Amino acid sequence: MSEKKKLPDRQERIGRRLIHKGNIIELNEDLMRLPDGREETYDFIYHKGAAAVIPVLDDGRILMVRQYRNAIDDYTLEIPAGGRNSVEEPTHECAYRELEEETGYHADREDVKFLLTLYTTVAFCNEKIDIYVAKNLKRTAQHLDDDEYINVEAYTIDELTQKVTKGEIVDAKTIAGLMTYRATLG
Amino acid sequence: MSEKKKLPDRQERIGRRLIHKGNIIELNEDLMRLPDGREETYDFIYHKGAAAVIPVLDDGRILMVRQYRNAIDDYTLEIPAGGRNSVEEPTHECAYRELEEETGYHADREDVKFLLTLYTTVAFCNEKIDIYVAKNLKRTAQHLDDDEYINVEAYTIDELTQKVTKGEIVDAKTIAGLMTYRATLG
Repeated sequence: MSEKKKLPDRQERIGRRLIHKGNIIELNEDLMRLPDGREETYDFIYHKGAAAVIPVLDDGRILMVRQYRNAIDDYTLEIPAGGRNSVEEPTHECAYRELEEETGYHADREDVKFLLTLYTTVAFCNEKIDIYVAKNLKRTAQHLDDDEYINVEAYTIDELTQKVTKGEIVDAKTIAGLMTYRATLG
Repeated sequence: MSEKKKLPDRQERIGRRLIHKGNIIELNEDLMRLPDGREETYDFIYHKGAAAVIPVLDDGRILMVRQYRNAIDDYTLEIPAGGRNSVEEPTHECAYRELEEETGYHADREDVKFLLTLYTTVAFCNEKIDIYVAKNLKRTAQHLDDDEYINVEAYTIDELTQKVTKGEIVDAKTIAGLMTYRATLG
């Protein structure tokens, strides 16, 4: 083990074939040339990117959304999030919009501050999520998409940490966002 | 907002059609019936599940792997991880195996302990990763897959926290695992 070795060898992409355009993702097959010269195919899922937001009430509690997720056939407790409307939509605008749509709480744009960026699953997908923290929230009203059915709940960061370690929160962006937010609280 | 509302309405899956079998994922189109009776199609990516491990040296530093990731066309710094060899492989065995293969450090099975489970991207994929913490590491040798080119580096948890907040670590499982591990240190 060495801490300052040169970067490992890079693979070179020599082809990308679109296999299927889904609703929110596109499946591609990439042809890669490995450092030793061999060629291999890799799955590649294209996603246009998303934003998420940690909405912090004046008393420090965090607003969470509970909803049914078909992909895991279960309910999840997550931070509010959503895909960008288009690749042109800044993630800050997306987070600002999703906050009010999903929770029914409004924050001024300058109270929605960048926390971190993550990629959900780097082995086969380019989905990138920018996560923000929103403060100075004011109650307005939910504006859900036609297929959204969401409950809003509020918890302290200590309660949420317990939910992570007990397995009651399982969504990666939510765990990553909340636990990083916790680390920034010192 | 109420903290103890009944669960939101559930969608019902009335069909699933396999569109393409990739190398590590399968793309499906799900037909869902929404609570209001309308039908909609959803993308669903099947993945057989994975394991990851936070390898902690006796001095507290954590072993990380740096590698090229085609999906985001960049290098990442991640905790060691890998897909299960089959749906029968326990994730504990997978984590134990990947630890030595990717880092060249061995831990006894009883020193590989469960930390948390996450789903990487619940909107469209069932990829589930069980994350473990490994201690009492002993140096052996890397056994990389034919297409793996990996550097091993070691950092303290404070250095890794800085790398998360500076955007130098962007992989969701890695951020979620490390920041949860940090929270458990008190």
